Order: sequence, then structure tokens, then C-alpha cells
Amino acid sequence: MQTRSDSLRCNGKKIVLVPTMGFLHEGHISLIRKGRELGDDLVVSIFVNPAQFAPEEDFDSYPRGFEKDCQLTEKAGVNAIFAPDAKELYAEGFQTYIRLEKLPMHLCGLSRPVFFRGVATVVSKLFNIVKPHIAIFGEKDFQQLQVIRQMVKDLNFDIEIVGGALVREPDGLAMSSRNTYLTPEQRVQALCLYQSLKKAQERVNSGIRESSKIIEEASAFISSLPEAVIDYAALCDPETLENVKTVDKPTLMALAVKIGKTRLIDNMMLR
Amino acid sequence: MQTRSDSLRCNGKKIVLVPTMGFLHEGHISLIRKGRELGDDLVVSIFVNPAQFAPEEDFDSYPRGFEKDCQLTEKAGVNAIFAPDAKELYAEGFQTYIRLEKLPMHLCGLSRPVFFRGVATVVSKLFNIVKPHIAIFGEKDFQQLQVIRQMVKDLNFDIEIVGGALVREPDGLAMSSRNTYLTPEQRVQALCLYQSLKKAQERVNSGIRESSKIIEEASAFISSLPEAVIDYAALCDPETLENVKTVDKPTLMALAVKIGKTRLIDNMMLR
Repeated sequence: MQTRSDSLRCNGKKIVLVPTMGFLHEGHISLIRKGRELGDDLVVSIFVNPAQFAPEEDFDSYPRGFEKDCQLTEKAGVNAIFAPDAKELYAEGFQTYIRLEKLPMHLCGLSRPVFFRGVATVVSKLFNIVKPHIAIFGEKDFQQLQVIRQMVKDLNFDIEIVGGALVREPDGLAMSSRNTYLTPEQRVQALCLYQSLKKAQERVNSGIRESSKIIEEASAFISSLPEAVIDYAALCDPETLENVKTVDKPTLMALAVKIGKTRLIDNMMLR
Repeated sequence: MQTRSDSLRCNGKKIVLVPTMGFLHEGHISLIRKGRELGDDLVVSIFVNPAQFAPEEDFDSYPRGFEKDCQLTEKAGVNAIFAPDAKELYAEGFQTYIRLEKLPMHLCGLSRPVFFRGVATVVSKLFNIVKPHIAIFGEKDFQQLQVIRQMVKDLNFDIEIVGGALVREPDGLAMSSRNTYLTPEQRVQALCLYQSLKKAQERVNSGIRESSKIIEEASAFISSLPEAVIDYAALCDPETLENVKTVDKPTLMALAVKIGKTRLIDNMMLR
């Protein structure tokens, strides 16, 4: 990959990387389409990264579908798939991790303490292997996007980070490879995330500004569903991810909810 | 620097980086000469990195001499000096650090807990800024060299790490910018590090294999000097830096000794 990229770079080609964990859906495809527009050489990485899963999480059961991913990426005009083996990326004696001190202390970082360390580490590895000019990350994983942006700035990676808009199913459910875990009954309840976000925007439109009131309403609604358990419901500054008390500028509303055993996240910028 | 390096790389030039904290002495110059041989474009970075000093350490008093460093590097055929401002490398909100889990748990890492985190972080920044093919580090900072090698492997940096031999004063004192701190009386006592290493090699030559015996002798000798206080005296595996009990293969002897307020390190491979 490094030799390939050196050669492409010297031929004036702009390399775009779209990192994924595979089991691609329309959300990934929209990032890939964006990458196709922004560069000359489009690399999609497919790697379910063990370093970002805690032992009790779903690394083993995470959905995989390499053959179908290959078809989808080919159709979308991808130039190369990078799908390394975990034993190659984490060789015996591996011991180097990248850690951010502030951004992971919010939202998903609180219930997934090793997650962002694993993400930052593997993404820096992918950056050094693929040597892209541009890398694209989905805004559905908003905190991850902010972590990557901060890491790129702090470690002086010569890479432009581009965010891609969240993509929803026709009924509003944010696309996620993990949606495949849901039973039909859970699938209906999973709409509560999007519904809560939409309702929150309506409340802001109607003049409500107190975060506590907006969060309280969302929490009451979500908790009324039989299989939904809130991990967090937060209104925060989109740069620092710190909680805000009043919505007086664009504010990120971020939700993490367990529907049965499946943890789903969603977010919306309230304006 | 990134644009400059991209252009050089595409013109087929091999870029070599020699990272330093300035106040250059013959040890640095030997690394620079090695770099001159190994590559086409030779970059020396000069940066006293605040992230690798603890608050009680000598960041403020660390010797600096930029004008003389420029003369020395020019004479040695350096193509570029990279001397950034600390405020530029560590902007407001900086929060990303690289940490190794095992190698820093030995030798200098024990008495300088933030040191290797600071080193790994700044070196990865320098790598991303200078984009060298090769980077050279002195073997006097043996543990640092191992930390960098491991980081490069773990994070897939496309960079070859080369070690440069330790350089001594005519009387055997390992060259160090910190030697300038020593009073004439301390300068004499500082020879105890090299003398202990030489004596240890003699002991090994004469058939002694027990680490404890070799360390005991070195400690007794160093402690007999009025201003010398041992931080550590260790015989360790040169790869893992773990202590070894018997010298039955090439073994690193590493010393850290405070002479008055000045902490000096030295090492030798016992064979």
C-alpha cells in the first residue's frame, strides 16, 4: 500500500481513504461517492478493529460480509480495498496506543473507555499505510469524527479530514451495520432515537432553550418503550463535546440507546 | 516542510531526519555525518520538547545555542534546519499523546514517567512534518531508540530507524548537552559511569555471569563518590529492556546517576 501510494502521489494523483469496518450500507456508500468526487484514487479499508472493542462488546458477532462489500465497492468505483489481517496490524508485542485527553471524556467515551483509544490508534495506522491526501468519516459517529480531526491537528498528519452526512432509512432510523441485530419489534422501537431528535428540534423552534427540559422530554419518551435503555442523552458543544445548559447557538444533540442488547447512536445539530 | 518533502520525494531524493534538542556536540555531529552518507536531503530538527520534561525537571535551564548550532550544521552539510516554536507544535487545546505500554516501564521511564510519552508524541509529529525516509537516533539514549523503533513498527510509519554509536570525550565521559551543568569537581566524578561500564565488561571477560554481582560492584563504586547518587544500574535484555539475571548473551548495561543536580545516563553492550 505504501509503495502504491508513493507512486500515485508522485504521479499527481489525489488519494482518498474511506475507513470502514465493512458490512457496507448506504451510509458507507454515500461516503464512498463523496470520495469518488474529491480524489483520483479511492481506497476503502475494511477492518473490524479489535482494539476498539472491550471484551464484553460485540467484536465476535459484529456483522461481516466481505464478498458483498467487494461487489458494492466495485460498483461504486473504488480503486483499492485494504483489508488487512488483525494479526498483521497488531503483531506480537504490539504496545503503542494514541490517546486523547479530553474529547473521549464525553458521550460514548464514558461507557466505552477503550473505544477512542482503539479508533485513534488504528486510524493513525491506516493513515501511515495508505498515505491519503483526504480521509472521509461519517457524521453519524460525530464524536469519532471530532477525535480524528483533533488527532490529525495535534500529530500534524498532512491529511484533510472530511465529514459525510448521516444517512437514514426511509422511516428515519440512522443506518448502521448493527441494525441487523434488531428483531422486528425492536426495529420499531429503535425509531425513538430519530423521533426524539426531531422532537427536540421542534422544541427549540418553539422557543425552548433549556437543555435540561429538552433532555428530560427525550428521556421520558425513550424510557417509555419496553426494550429501550438510555446510555446517554446530551446536548453539547459540537467542538469540545462539553454539555451546554442552553441552546443559544448550534448545539449537538447526541443519543446512545440500548434496544435490547443492541446499542444504537444517533445525533442531530439543533439550530 | 511537508510541501518541501513531497517535492523532494517525488524527485527521487532520499530524506534523512536527525531529531535533536540542539546545543549540538560531537555526538550529534556523528549522527549528522551518518545522515549525510545515507540520504540526499538532510534535515536536522532542533526543538527542546516541553512534553518530555516533568515540571521539576530542567526544561527552562536546558542549554540552548541556536546560532552556534546553525554554524555546526551548515559545516556538516545539512540541507534544512527545522526549529519550530513550542506554541506552534502544541497549540491551545492540544490533547493527543502516544503511549507505549511496556518499554517505558524500565530504566529511565521509572524515574521520568512522562518522558517517553513526550518523546513518542513529538517524534511522531516530526515524522509527519518532515516525512523522512530515514531517521537517526543516538544509541546513548538506548531506551529512547527502542521506544521509537517499536512505535514505528506498531503505527506502521514508513520510515527506517537507524541507530548511531555513542560518542565519548577523550577521557570516556559520554557526550551530552547536560555535561555543561557539571562543576570541575563533578566533571571528574562523572567518569564513574564509564568506568563502571568498562569494569563490568572486564568482569564478564573474566567469567562472572551473575547480574547481581556486577551491579553490586558498580553501585558500591559509584556510591563511594561524594556527589554521585544512583538512579538505576541495570543489566537488561536489549530488546525488551527487562532485567536479566545472568549475562549469557549480549546484555545491555544501563546506568543513570545524579552527579549533584545533573542526571547523566550511559550504557554499554556487555558481550
